[in-house]
Amino acid sequence: MSNSIRVFAPASVANVAVGFDILGFALDKPGDEIKVGFSDQQGLRITAITGADGKLPLVVEKNTAGFAAQQLLKHLNKEDIGIDMEIHKKMPFGSGLGSSAASAAAGVVAVNALLGYPLNKQELLHFAVLGEQIADGAYHADNVAPSLLGGMILIRNNSDLDVHQLPIPDDLYAAVVHPDVEVLTKDARDVLSDQVCLKKCIEQGGNLAAFILGLMNSDFELISRSLHDVIIEPQRAQLIPNFYDVKEAAVTAGALGCSISGAGPSIFALCQGEETGRAVGQAMQSVFSRAGIENQLYLSNINRDGAVVL
Amino acid sequence: MSNSIRVFAPASVANVAVGFDILGFALDKPGDEIKVGFSDQQGLRITAITGADGKLPLVVEKNTAGFAAQQLLKHLNKEDIGIDMEIHKKMPFGSGLGSSAASAAAGVVAVNALLGYPLNKQELLHFAVLGEQIADGAYHADNVAPSLLGGMILIRNNSDLDVHQLPIPDDLYAAVVHPDVEVLTKDARDVLSDQVCLKKCIEQGGNLAAFILGLMNSDFELISRSLHDVIIEPQRAQLIPNFYDVKEAAVTAGALGCSISGAGPSIFALCQGEETGRAVGQAMQSVFSRAGIENQLYLSNINRDGAVVL
Repeated sequence: MSNSIRVFAPASVANVAVGFDILGFALDKPGDEIKVGFSDQQGLRITAITGADGKLPLVVEKNTAGFAAQQLLKHLNKEDIGIDMEIHKKMPFGSGLGSSAASAAAGVVAVNALLGYPLNKQELLHFAVLGEQIADGAYHADNVAPSLLGGMILIRNNSDLDVHQLPIPDDLYAAVVHPDVEVLTKDARDVLSDQVCLKKCIEQGGNLAAFILGLMNSDFELISRSLHDVIIEPQRAQLIPNFYDVKEAAVTAGALGCSISGAGPSIFALCQGEETGRAVGQAMQSVFSRAGIENQLYLSNINRDGAVVL
Repeated sequence: MSNSIRVFAPASVANVAVGFDILGFALDKPGDEIKVGFSDQQGLRITAITGADGKLPLVVEKNTAGFAAQQLLKHLNKEDIGIDMEIHKKMPFGSGLGSSAASAAAGVVAVNALLGYPLNKQELLHFAVLGEQIADGAYHADNVAPSLLGGMILIRNNSDLDVHQLPIPDDLYAAVVHPDVEVLTKDARDVLSDQVCLKKCIEQGGNLAAFILGLMNSDFELISRSLHDVIIEPQRAQLIPNFYDVKEAAVTAGALGCSISGAGPSIFALCQGEETGRAVGQAMQSVFSRAGIENQLYLSNINRDGAVVL
């Protein structure tokens, strides 16, 4: 592998309680690393995957990072260039932390960097979303956009990739706890009714709008009053053991709000200040630990950088 | 009537396409005027109502302005003070422009001013909403809050009156056309399904969030892309003759977006600049006029002041 480039892309929290399918933010850690370099052999190859217990495909077309990078190369008319890719999964998958999105984001950023930055990050988004689609089935940017671009992201519309950075108060931290239980994405989908009562739709809208205003004004009390998901969380909570106890522990320890990260089983809490974040995270962990469920805590500022060349 | 006080409270546009029950903004005109002064007779009396064709009750308890003012006096332990009130309706009612809300707002501001300002406007809101409830049946601030406070208002939650000013780009104008047709509030309610499909709820959420971000960043293109009501407007449009033609005329003439004001039949368009606002308003009027429907145009900046003592 010559001229090799290493890229880190962070995990992300999608939905963020009040923005099902339209909000997501990036974490400082965990995340995936991807290494690419030129090779003598024609075309893109995945030469190694670590950290995935053999569960991810080496076949480029079936791999989120591989497919995303391949679509980018196709767009640039550079499919024939010899590129080797190593994928180092450094985060759990099926965790609700946007693992496949992180790989897709890292893949396109790495190949773009290797080729001398023909596109900017905004232009890369479409290809990363195509990669994510391999894993997820849907053309959805709520994990990919934060993982690639960093920040707290609003997706007005997924099909147009009408994607926007929201303001972030400096002191906003996320405590995310990943319990070692399995929630199948299919179950997380199947459990959702395709109808919402109008009253709840209005309530969620008020909370969503107020959350954004709270971010804008660094109004932590308003953020806290707004962080209530009355539509998705009540339907999905049953899939995560001890969810409501964990949530109560987070709020009691001072969290602004607490809900399911993506489709779960990870649970995130937003907090004012790192110290509160740590206390909240430990309180959440305690509930899982007492129930005999292994778990990891990720404490993080909101990541402003997204995927970066190391 | 001694020491008399005159108050103007403006009309308002509720719902604003993407914020059913949670957004509203105030207009510079039209609006209602209320005059109050001390009298020798004990208690609050409504001595005159003009501009209502005898359709509004003189009985204090049945009149939005009277009831709102009476509730305020009760709260202040001043029910016995002799106060005469004149109500001068200077806007159409049943128009979707918040006529009863304007009267309620004007009523409490006038009585509060007469008594030497014991409460601030935020504290008056509850009493004005109680007045509006007489007309509307619901404890809803989406017209009352803008009429009282001015601005573009977000109501996170009506029952707590968790009410917030949103940022407003300087150059934002509203063209509002009131066609002389009747839409019964009951019909406007009955036509709404109490269920929303999840997909539309997500789409509306994306638009709502992006509209607020657009206001914040004075991003008129984003405001324009966001001003689409996919839930309420499609259900209520049938109640307003020529609605879609008026909307098309507005957008063709350069409106950022166009939808139903409150429960209708008035139609509002948001525009960048007064000149565009005027052209848009005239284009909207033309459609009604060609259909033989009398109509009035109100062209206005977003009113920042709300109810004011004259």
